[in-house]
Amino acid sequence: MTGNVKIGIVAPSSRLDPAMADRVVELAAARHSGAELRFHPQCYLSAGHFAGDDAARAAAFVEVANDPSFDALWFARGGYGAGRIAERVVPKLGPAARRKMYLGYSDAGAMLAALYAQGFPGLAHGPMPADINRGGGEAAVARALDWLVRRDSAALEPSLVSGEKAVAFNLMTLSQLIGTSLQPDLAGHVLMLEEVSEHMYRIDRSLFHLTSHAPIRRVAGIRLGRCSAIPPNDPEFVLNEVEVVTHWCRVSGIPYLGRADIGHDAANKIVPFGPLGRA
Amino acid sequence: MTGNVKIGIVAPSSRLDPAMADRVVELAAARHSGAELRFHPQCYLSAGHFAGDDAARAAAFVEVANDPSFDALWFARGGYGAGRIAERVVPKLGPAARRKMYLGYSDAGAMLAALYAQGFPGLAHGPMPADINRGGGEAAVARALDWLVRRDSAALEPSLVSGEKAVAFNLMTLSQLIGTSLQPDLAGHVLMLEEVSEHMYRIDRSLFHLTSHAPIRRVAGIRLGRCSAIPPNDPEFVLNEVEVVTHWCRVSGIPYLGRADIGHDAANKIVPFGPLGRA
Repeated sequence: MTGNVKIGIVAPSSRLDPAMADRVVELAAARHSGAELRFHPQCYLSAGHFAGDDAARAAAFVEVANDPSFDALWFARGGYGAGRIAERVVPKLGPAARRKMYLGYSDAGAMLAALYAQGFPGLAHGPMPADINRGGGEAAVARALDWLVRRDSAALEPSLVSGEKAVAFNLMTLSQLIGTSLQPDLAGHVLMLEEVSEHMYRIDRSLFHLTSHAPIRRVAGIRLGRCSAIPPNDPEFVLNEVEVVTHWCRVSGIPYLGRADIGHDAANKIVPFGPLGRA
Repeated sequence: MTGNVKIGIVAPSSRLDPAMADRVVELAAARHSGAELRFHPQCYLSAGHFAGDDAARAAAFVEVANDPSFDALWFARGGYGAGRIAERVVPKLGPAARRKMYLGYSDAGAMLAALYAQGFPGLAHGPMPADINRGGGEAAVARALDWLVRRDSAALEPSLVSGEKAVAFNLMTLSQLIGTSLQPDLAGHVLMLEEVSEHMYRIDRSLFHLTSHAPIRRVAGIRLGRCSAIPPNDPEFVLNEVEVVTHWCRVSGIPYLGRADIGHDAANKIVPFGPLGRA
């Protein structure tokens, strides 16, 4: 390790299995001699649902974000808990935090949203260390490292266009931020949405929620990522996720732009927040 | 039947089993000779998840609401779909709709919210015909009829105080309306919330969502109804629903006022929307 790019990993949501961290360190060592990974011990704490209580998770996030020796803060995994601490984290972040890269998705989107609302320039939606446990997950983790270490454009979601603004979120995570201080201004952005383990009627309901919110209606358009592991609907919902999103785009007047290559899977690509090329 | 109180039943959400309607008609005939129940044929339509497509559900709702011969519109059941048609229903409602009583809960709350946002005075959260299928459900349906036919104060949620404003909602249903045109102004209201079949982390997340929204912070306080059929959390969430709601009330500065006698069960009491005594 030469320490060219130092990446701090914290877990604002659920706890990371230390064995996953070991595998990610191995993979990084084999692929990027210039990457230095530091898993904060907070990743392995346990407090019920969370990787440590709110105070412990917030303190670790603030510590790594504010440490100028780290180039990037990588979210260890999703689950639930990032939004729970965002309002106590944001006021404590200084200039070193603002200069940093941040990478994560799923529940991490709650914190990414809060940081984007504060104008942080280096945010991206993409794979996390815990993705190592998926089938083919090494490719997802390698893609994330390729982005963090050398801004590899091959890691990017393929519909992204230089100079155009984009963001990506888990649908339900963004829905649960609407109207709160964590909600960023997405006017003019391509909004990419993905979902996992939600019934189709809930996907429909959350798309109603988002597309019926006046500030969201100012996005440039919506792209739909993969909706995976959808539990069976009883009775059958009939409409699929594309029919549902096109329905709500039509009702709301938001352009539907097609699919996005993101999702809760190993193929999940990187979506930098804001105008491409700025980060 | 003397036709003293004519109650029209429609199903803006999921389909009603006709056998349930028969049982409710029997119960009403035995208990209230002055009640006349008319189940709109739309209740029995089927279009995927819904009791007929959006156009059919909206048309039946508008027909019954605008018919001056009906004293009350009773939601047949919950499920999902009321919010999906609310924006097309509301502009079509006339003076007869505004004078009417409305009773329902769960997904019906999306329509009740939209009507309350329009200043409708006769709305209430309470049992629906489909509750006949619960264990002890006859008591719930009888309570609803006691309210619709003769405003029986014994049917009311016991913490309600004359002259004080209240509303009641399913937590997730209200969460999915935040920031939309369906959201009513709840300033100064006691906000009662109940939930069913949601993981504790989702209850926590939705309470974060609601209590972090500035207009919701103007409620007089929150009362927590029953949270039932909570799926197991992995790992254990540790906090229960009372600890979760008191956490978010403390964070948001909203007074926590204790429990409410509402829920997805046979004991579900009536909560008229607005100042008690007005309806």
